[in-house]
Amino acid sequence: MHTLIAVAHPHIARSNTQSFLKETAALEPTATWHELDGATLNLAAERKQLLASDRIVLQFPLYWYSAPAALWNWLDQVWVKNVVYGPDDGLLQGKSLGLVVSYSEPPRDYDLGGKVGLSMQEILRPFAAIAKRCGLQLLSPLLIPQFDRMTEQERAQLLVAYRQYLTLADPSSQREQAAWFEQQLRQNDAELLADTLADQQDKLLDLRATVSQLRAGEEE
Amino acid sequence: MHTLIAVAHPHIARSNTQSFLKETAALEPTATWHELDGATLNLAAERKQLLASDRIVLQFPLYWYSAPAALWNWLDQVWVKNVVYGPDDGLLQGKSLGLVVSYSEPPRDYDLGGKVGLSMQEILRPFAAIAKRCGLQLLSPLLIPQFDRMTEQERAQLLVAYRQYLTLADPSSQREQAAWFEQQLRQNDAELLADTLADQQDKLLDLRATVSQLRAGEEE
Repeated sequence: MHTLIAVAHPHIARSNTQSFLKETAALEPTATWHELDGATLNLAAERKQLLASDRIVLQFPLYWYSAPAALWNWLDQVWVKNVVYGPDDGLLQGKSLGLVVSYSEPPRDYDLGGKVGLSMQEILRPFAAIAKRCGLQLLSPLLIPQFDRMTEQERAQLLVAYRQYLTLADPSSQREQAAWFEQQLRQNDAELLADTLADQQDKLLDLRATVSQLRAGEEE
Repeated sequence: MHTLIAVAHPHIARSNTQSFLKETAALEPTATWHELDGATLNLAAERKQLLASDRIVLQFPLYWYSAPAALWNWLDQVWVKNVVYGPDDGLLQGKSLGLVVSYSEPPRDYDLGGKVGLSMQEILRPFAAIAKRCGLQLLSPLLIPQFDRMTEQERAQLLVAYRQYLTLADPSSQREQAAWFEQQLRQNDAELLADTLADQQDKLLDLRATVSQLRAGEEE
């Protein structure tokens, strides 16, 4: 499965979140990191890249309860009628659409009665309508609140969740998550362990415990 | 009351809707037409213009169940923390926010169970959150579906609704609408009548009937 990560961030060089995600994405040979800078686009190249992908991930920080302008610029120019949808099936039919959305406020701000007055699910609903129009299967979004306040452990969990989001057929399936962990353990993938878990034996045991819990969860 | 009309349309020269609205806005000396082209912005000039306005109208065609990129570009660059909101009150506090949104599908596509799967109110909810954050009073949106299919009479009604939207303290108030019509009639404003009603006496009678109906509606 090939995954195209379309990243829109107005100040990407300054973003710790995006630099963490970029390093993580580099671990996946089947994922392509594609930064959208709001400039004029080579439409033919953009379409070719879309066509070559099985999954498209829209990745951005929340700006004004929406995506930054560069994402809309890309959608407005590239995702046009008779290309991605139209009287006939567009070129995205049957692919999957992921959303990786970071934001700086605490999640409770988006709760009912919270400061914002709008839930994250409401904010992202236009993307469900976009997926529907293009015949894309929408994945549950991967939300990243307050990256800069995350502990090392939370970041290790995010790294795993993100790798799974880029590669698993259904990233929210506990069965697929467990299979992914088992495969990592079988491969004894030193690179993964070095990167994510600082190669510590106790973390390995944690992983095994996670697998057991996920297996137990499935049997319930 | 001064009104700033911030217009975002990727192909504005080709838009019959925007050209109709632009001609109409030109009838209002207190309204400023401001096209956003997605280019780099002069932030100081933009802020000055915002500060000088009592009402800001965001005007755009629906693109991907959202506004076109140029609107987000303007919001992302100009409507920033410590300017339009922040620890202290931003420069928009107490002003009003209008939305003039055109779209090409029939309104039923946005009904529950419709093709889109998302209502117009849901699509525009982020703007309610933006208004809340900036201390702006949100007006009911002025929706313009399928302008190109409108009859002459519907366009005359739109012209009046738009003029009212740009100038009335509460454009959805029947009392204010009636007062506006009465004022137009009292002034015997030949320009308005020539432009909107082709100066026909029967249309004048229609106007008087409208006023009577509105008055009757208020008394109910």
